Amino acid sequence: MNAAPPAKANTWWFTGLPAAGKTTLAQALAGHLRALGQAACVLDGDRIRQGLNKNLGFSTLDREENMRRVAEIAKLLNESGIHALVALVSPTLAGRTNARRIVGENFIEVHVATPLPVCQQRDPKGLYARALAHPGSGLTGVDAPFEIPETPEIIIDTSIMRTEEAVFRLLDLAGA
Amino acid sequence: MNAAPPAKANTWWFTGLPAAGKTTLAQALAGHLRALGQAACVLDGDRIRQGLNKNLGFSTLDREENMRRVAEIAKLLNESGIHALVALVSPTLAGRTNARRIVGENFIEVHVATPLPVCQQRDPKGLYARALAHPGSGLTGVDAPFEIPETPEIIIDTSIMRTEEAVFRLLDLAGA
Repeated sequence: MNAAPPAKANTWWFTGLPAAGKTTLAQALAGHLRALGQAACVLDGDRIRQGLNKNLGFSTLDREENMRRVAEIAKLLNESGIHALVALVSPTLAGRTNARRIVGENFIEVHVATPLPVCQQRDPKGLYARALAHPGSGLTGVDAPFEIPETPEIIIDTSIMRTEEAVFRLLDLAGA
Repeated sequence: MNAAPPAKANTWWFTGLPAAGKTTLAQALAGHLRALGQAACVLDGDRIRQGLNKNLGFSTLDREENMRRVAEIAKLLNESGIHALVALVSPTLAGRTNARRIVGENFIEVHVATPLPVCQQRDPKGLYARALAHPGSGLTGVDAPFEIPETPEIIIDTSIMRTEEAVFRLLDLAGA
């Protein structure tokens, strides 16, 4: 009646500017992992702020708490043999370092390093347009800093790499 | 590259007194679901209070927030085709009703209705002994009320039913 030993599962932490392509990559990777017969759960920042973290704002403290909670969930998932695919701006070094500490050695930091001008041009949710029209919005990339990851496991620029290619590199990185 | 449509997944919400057998049942059911090739994640109250919810106490408000966060995670898991097995005292009708509202129609409330004297006798973590020695501890069943579920999908008394039998009833209930 005991649970089978869980498969090796990773936390893939996609960090980058709004509209960099984090969620697209996370969902595509999740699809591939499932096709390989592995369980995967996407933890999307926007979605989580509508539910679990709807009582958090965008102050530095609230952003850190946002990252902490997501990291704790990712760890729980990994302990059950489920890949966690986190798509979260996560703009601070401190927040990401804490997330890595919580999750442990199976933490894979993916810097989605699509250049700001490309993100601003895509702007599927109109976030940049709104932030540029209303200074002080706190949008990362406009009114709030994005601290470049110092030691990510991989860097992906979606303005020069197709999603399919990126997914294969991610799978290759984890030996999946 | 799209994610495969997720399998039908449920949230099994084990509610009951401390030491009633919630975690044992949740882990046993998770093992069986995995053996059937389905993804499952145990959300254990003790474990979650050490991590995700370590910034919450045991006031009524904090207990409700504890339940709310767990329900939101369960919903995320279900959306990814992963069964959520929640082992949480969850002593209030209001908290469980809110959890059911968040999760939706795939919420299965399992009242682990092991009698209080049996729970007190088991007391694997010494919680009852401590609470009886120190009045005002707030332990559910001693110094805090447990509101009996009004419409659980199933009631299991682990003092008269073996784990294996309970798991088969749970699987049967969900048509798994």
